[in-house]
Amino acid sequence: MIKREKTNPIIKASDVKPSREDFEVFGVFNAAAVEVGKRTFLLLRVAEKAIETDPMVAITAKYDPETNTIKKVYFDKNDQGIDCSDPRTVKTQKDGNFITSMGHLRGAWSDDGVNFSVDEKPLLAAGTPIETYGIEDARITFIEGKYIITYAAVSDDGICTVMAVSKDLKSVERKGMIFVPNNKNVAIFPERINGLYWALHRPFNKVRARESIWIASSPDLIHWGQFEKIVSPGPEEWDRVKIGPGAPPLRTDKGWLEIYHGVDKDEKYSLGGVLLDLDDPTKVIGRSTTPFLFAEEPYEVDGLVKNIIFTCNAVKRSAGMIDIYYGAADDSTCLATISEEELLKDVT
Amino acid sequence: MIKREKTNPIIKASDVKPSREDFEVFGVFNAAAVEVGKRTFLLLRVAEKAIETDPMVAITAKYDPETNTIKKVYFDKNDQGIDCSDPRTVKTQKDGNFITSMGHLRGAWSDDGVNFSVDEKPLLAAGTPIETYGIEDARITFIEGKYIITYAAVSDDGICTVMAVSKDLKSVERKGMIFVPNNKNVAIFPERINGLYWALHRPFNKVRARESIWIASSPDLIHWGQFEKIVSPGPEEWDRVKIGPGAPPLRTDKGWLEIYHGVDKDEKYSLGGVLLDLDDPTKVIGRSTTPFLFAEEPYEVDGLVKNIIFTCNAVKRSAGMIDIYYGAADDSTCLATISEEELLKDVT
Repeated sequence: MIKREKTNPIIKASDVKPSREDFEVFGVFNAAAVEVGKRTFLLLRVAEKAIETDPMVAITAKYDPETNTIKKVYFDKNDQGIDCSDPRTVKTQKDGNFITSMGHLRGAWSDDGVNFSVDEKPLLAAGTPIETYGIEDARITFIEGKYIITYAAVSDDGICTVMAVSKDLKSVERKGMIFVPNNKNVAIFPERINGLYWALHRPFNKVRARESIWIASSPDLIHWGQFEKIVSPGPEEWDRVKIGPGAPPLRTDKGWLEIYHGVDKDEKYSLGGVLLDLDDPTKVIGRSTTPFLFAEEPYEVDGLVKNIIFTCNAVKRSAGMIDIYYGAADDSTCLATISEEELLKDVT
Repeated sequence: MIKREKTNPIIKASDVKPSREDFEVFGVFNAAAVEVGKRTFLLLRVAEKAIETDPMVAITAKYDPETNTIKKVYFDKNDQGIDCSDPRTVKTQKDGNFITSMGHLRGAWSDDGVNFSVDEKPLLAAGTPIETYGIEDARITFIEGKYIITYAAVSDDGICTVMAVSKDLKSVERKGMIFVPNNKNVAIFPERINGLYWALHRPFNKVRARESIWIASSPDLIHWGQFEKIVSPGPEEWDRVKIGPGAPPLRTDKGWLEIYHGVDKDEKYSLGGVLLDLDDPTKVIGRSTTPFLFAEEPYEVDGLVKNIIFTCNAVKRSAGMIDIYYGAADDSTCLATISEEELLKDVT
């Protein structure tokens, strides 16, 4: 059975220092996770918002490319056409809705995979014109001696996926947009297959088809093609409404094991698995019928958004155990462990 | 000044034989155009619909991957939750709207660039799961001895762009999806630049930013990346609401000349030009302030959709003249000619 870490949530908003004095952290979730030697590194999604001191003024944050700074945008709550009744959003008649939060990516290090020391400063924060409303949901794949980071970037153009590269996870180099808006949940495979790199991704548009897991290949990690939808929602209730890639696939003897999220009609996010052919990852050879991890604990059921379990990375440990780092209720960072053998039984 | 062909529209729906006996052609527009030796080839967007014989039954068409055929889908106009008041659409409460038309791509050949003989059968028609509701708006780029065809494919997943290759434009080989939904108007440059292929494209999502002209590069025409928005709508009225790539860029001494479409607040589509740096096509060095071609003639002002001028290809002739083939009012195929010199003055 899956075993939740006793000290869950292992990282909470109160464990994270704001990136600046006039901001507060209200969530830390959906972390990338990777082994670095004997240590574990998490790249946390930190959700901040500007501290509001005047009860009649709402504040949102926006990256300004001209000054290369994150600026506060002020809204008078008395203004006609402004609705601030939901503290997460400023609704304007003229320009639509603006979220009050901004996300950045923060490193955290651990010797035991459970107790983490969170960095004082962001490793990556909004810093380009396609990141104006923040960045979030990083995933890391170690491949050919480099850590490849993908993350979602939010701007007026929608949500796209950016790639960045690091040798040591202490400094990072952006490599630009790799998937055009709207597309996120990009999870890169840890090896080339038939000479190409591969990634799972999830385009999302207001179309009739429900959000699904897609695949793509690349000769160089920069240019992507051979797009194909490989897993659709359903047929079970728990993942009937939409699905998306979770962790970058893990190699097992039986196939590529993909831990993905499924969403039911009540917007409950749970985790299941699919198995992809080792030599042809476009071929689905197994799939969970029930979720192996779903919101049950108070910190999963209640939080900023109720009933969310969302993973961006799972770490294969020795002794056949898989550590799944996950965001609970869009609020905190948690850990659960399951044996590879058991998980494979679930998907075959 | 731009000169419209006297015999416009040069191809009308009545000039095109339906692809099957129980269908009728109601529009032929937005053609790809390319010189093949001394001849001109058009790849027409043919819009067909099933002939309705029972006044109480509406019919739409859908490609069925299982039988590899295009099937008719019947709707009882008396059914509750079905609205057929607009003959172009069947609106259902349960599954949303279905268009009654289906597009395919049909070749046409000419010795003089004006009088065309339209092929009896489609060159390309809906034939894969991402083309279930038809294909449309082809563009052709001749590069390195091959005709590269891009076209929009419509399915429940939205509208994506597919690439196909031909040596002679008599047979064609599909190469798969090159831009994920929603993305269309893909126009490939006719040469490599700095070792890479380049394309203009137009992602479209329900986001705050207005639809714009984007660029991308590719090492092999299959995998695309380095996505960047290079031209935004406005600031003039005629192209303030949205813009998109039109013809594949033409090489001139002053830069890459891109003929694009701009849309105003009344949904009027007109043509203007932008000039891109020859060595760095992400760099915009000139732009029209006024459209050089906009709906004025009766066949442009009136038709299936009023006030539409839309081009997919322009052909550079000897003597410095550019033949712009364009769709008028989403209805018929037209031709207008302008000197390169004059067009360049317009954009610099």
